Amino acid sequence: MPFLVTGFEPFGGQHHNPSQAVLGLLPSQVGSLETTSPYGPSETVTAILPVDSGGVAKELSRLYRKYKPEAALHLGLAEGRALISLERLALNLMDFSIPDNTGVVREDQTIVPGGPLALGSRLPLRRILESWQRENIPATLSNSAGTYLCNQVMYLALSSLPQEVPVGFIHLPPDETLALKKTSPYTPLAVQAQAVRLALETTLNYVADRFRRTR
Amino acid sequence: MPFLVTGFEPFGGQHHNPSQAVLGLLPSQVGSLETTSPYGPSETVTAILPVDSGGVAKELSRLYRKYKPEAALHLGLAEGRALISLERLALNLMDFSIPDNTGVVREDQTIVPGGPLALGSRLPLRRILESWQRENIPATLSNSAGTYLCNQVMYLALSSLPQEVPVGFIHLPPDETLALKKTSPYTPLAVQAQAVRLALETTLNYVADRFRRTR
Amino acid sequence: MPFLVTGFEPFGGQHHNPSQAVLGLLPSQVGSLETTSPYGPSETVTAILPVDSGGVAKELSRLYRKYKPEAALHLGLAEGRALISLERLALNLMDFSIPDNTGVVREDQTIVPGGPLALGSRLPLRRILESWQRENIPATLSNSAGTYLCNQVMYLALSSLPQEVPVGFIHLPPDETLALKKTSPYTPLAVQAQAVRLALETTLNYVADRFRRTR
Amino acid sequence: MPFLVTGFEPFGGQHHNPSQAVLGLLPSQVGSLETTSPYGPSETVTAILPVDSGGVAKELSRLYRKYKPEAALHLGLAEGRALISLERLALNLMDFSIPDNTGVVREDQTIVPGGPLALGSRLPLRRILESWQRENIPATLSNSAGTYLCNQVMYLALSSLPQEVPVGFIHLPPDETLALKKTSPYTPLAVQAQAVRLALETTLNYVADRFRRTR
Repeated sequence: MPFLVTGFEPFGGQHHNPSQAVLGLLPSQVGSLETTSPYGPSETVTAILPVDSGGVAKELSRLYRKYKPEAALHLGLAEGRALISLERLALNLMDFSIPDNTGVVREDQTIVPGGPLALGSRLPLRRILESWQRENIPATLSNSAGTYLCNQVMYLALSSLPQEVPVGFIHLPPDETLALKKTSPYTPLAVQAQAVRLALETTLNYVADRFRRTR
Repeated sequence: MPFLVTGFEPFGGQHHNPSQAVLGLLPSQVGSLETTSPYGPSETVTAILPVDSGGVAKELSRLYRKYKPEAALHLGLAEGRALISLERLALNLMDFSIPDNTGVVREDQTIVPGGPLALGSRLPLRRILESWQRENIPATLSNSAGTYLCNQVMYLALSSLPQEVPVGFIHLPPDETLALKKTSPYTPLAVQAQAVRLALETTLNYVADRFRRTR
Repeated sequence: MPFLVTGFEPFGGQHHNPSQAVLGLLPSQVGSLETTSPYGPSETVTAILPVDSGGVAKELSRLYRKYKPEAALHLGLAEGRALISLERLALNLMDFSIPDNTGVVREDQTIVPGGPLALGSRLPLRRILESWQRENIPATLSNSAGTYLCNQVMYLALSSLPQEVPVGFIHLPPDETLALKKTSPYTPLAVQAQAVRLALETTLNYVADRFRRTR
Repeated sequence: MPFLVTGFEPFGGQHHNPSQAVLGLLPSQVGSLETTSPYGPSETVTAILPVDSGGVAKELSRLYRKYKPEAALHLGLAEGRALISLERLALNLMDFSIPDNTGVVREDQTIVPGGPLALGSRLPLRRILESWQRENIPATLSNSAGTYLCNQVMYLALSSLPQEVPVGFIHLPPDETLALKKTSPYTPLAVQAQAVRLALETTLNYVADRFRRTR
């Protein structure tokens, strides 16, 4: 069973999204026979999600049905942040400050009617942060994934994948391509790729540990 | 004749300064026979300046007398900035918001009594910015080097080295070592080193071009 | 029955907290016979909470038992924000980046074991935002009350007061007293007081409307 | 002889400029018989400058010839700043990041060919800062007026008015009108008006003191 990693297409009038670009820098396999999943190393499958609030749930379902992922990591761009941020939770709320790529704007709407207000990440957050710290990658733990598409995907993922599947969201800051245009703080794409790879490996190790403990 | 590059020791209670750390990552020679100085590649000599407002002028004089540099690039840390910034000018003004490492605080004092209010960088600013752009390194052109030690060194350098010697200042942002402690925006030290190396090469090419034109 | 408004004592080495100072600028009564509560204008009672994670729950209980408030508005300082922010929700999470005033630091702890991950504000958020907009007070709707004492109090209030009691939290930015020391963005205390007064009135009008509709 | 105060028309696609709006809140006279100018209180005359790099010098000349001001205070908007900032100096440099209102963009051009790189403010900077501090108005002393129209006007004013005429520049942050649109940090327009009035009075007191000392 593969590890699914998704990014988003560009939005907001831009022509580049680091969460899309980073997918091409990920290894096709993560983990090793000894340290990770009981089944050996895990294949990485990647997909690019549309910034389409009305269509993204269907696309996610299709991907989950197709790949039956062992774990899922969703990635998105947070333009106003300087560091990679690991999201703690998703809110059952859509409140857009800019339209999505189909022109839809939502205000104070739920994602899953009747669902809980918040769902917590199912990634091993502290372990991932430590893996970044060890490799000298500055990052933060975030208490809000916003109320736009990123949060919507994180909430949909947490409500639709089985409870035992690790799933979570990382917000990526602008990379050098965006920073060269807007003179904003950034984290180099190569560092972003390294951070995502570490998050994948750490999550697989966590799955393997859990498997061993429960055997 | 060498290219002098200086950084500063840590200050403000910190134990690390990227402008010092970056010196160890610079090549010992920059430029090549064909493209740069008429004398061939230029040796790089580095030195670490004390954050000592009363003593730094003497230390600079000593370095200039010892090395008779062909060009001088001074580096310092700008904690509140996210990107590498190339300084346009230095002011004849010291106005410290924190003490230097000897406990001295200066308010509204001149650096060189009777000197002009501002002295412009003698580096090829636009060429350096273009060299960074070509290598995808986000950076800014800055109109203020502040009123602390960095500005003091830039002003002293511009007033004491001969007019034909290219001299200027680059403010470096926090690197990963500082950002891991303070969760601030940063630019990786390896990128900072690449930017400094490009600035050295670009400056030597500029010197060589000038030499050829005036021959 | 009164409207309870609380602020916090200073913390983090400071000697001033706008959430405390603003309490002295509030009117002793809010609302009028016609427009608000069925019982006529509501008395405002204020209290200052300790920045004491271990003791604040008990102090809140004492206040709720003593006053049996018709509505409760809790206030706190958000040092890094420039504008008044109305919190949407509280998380069942304590994760402190600085100790509280008793020296306690909590990491990844729940506030109410077994409680939901998030509880939503029971204030009329959009109405309050509109009342501020009408009076030209810039403000934001916030998706995170942090993971320190402010969030703890908001979560405790939402879990312990009866469901029909409107209760919520407003984060106040630095005021002029703090900004004069730290040169930070700020909102004048008088504007903060006006915003809090408008939030109280709007909440009482909302209670009265609800009462009329359900009669 | 009057005290000339100027603001700018809106620019950059906006419909409001606090440096224009604040002019309407200034008193028509500043100072008193005893405390200020030897000639008694000074009349305040105001004017709105065009954001027209090619035409602003002519408009300034016209105003200076018409009013022969005893002192001149020029005001402009600094969108990215949160606090009122008193400029220390103007640079002999135009380098625009956005076009002016006539569509002109300048890159690395001098304002007065052959003029000094920088000219220092002729306002009593420290006295003005103290007058603000006394009235609890957070503010900063700035080392850069930028390289757009604000800096151009400050440089032109300093180079064209007689040396004995106090002249300087204050950058105003967004006011509530702008902050309501862009959710940015701001300083209320009433506070901005109070700060400008204090700067005018302090400057006139300074002129009067100088007159007394030199008599």
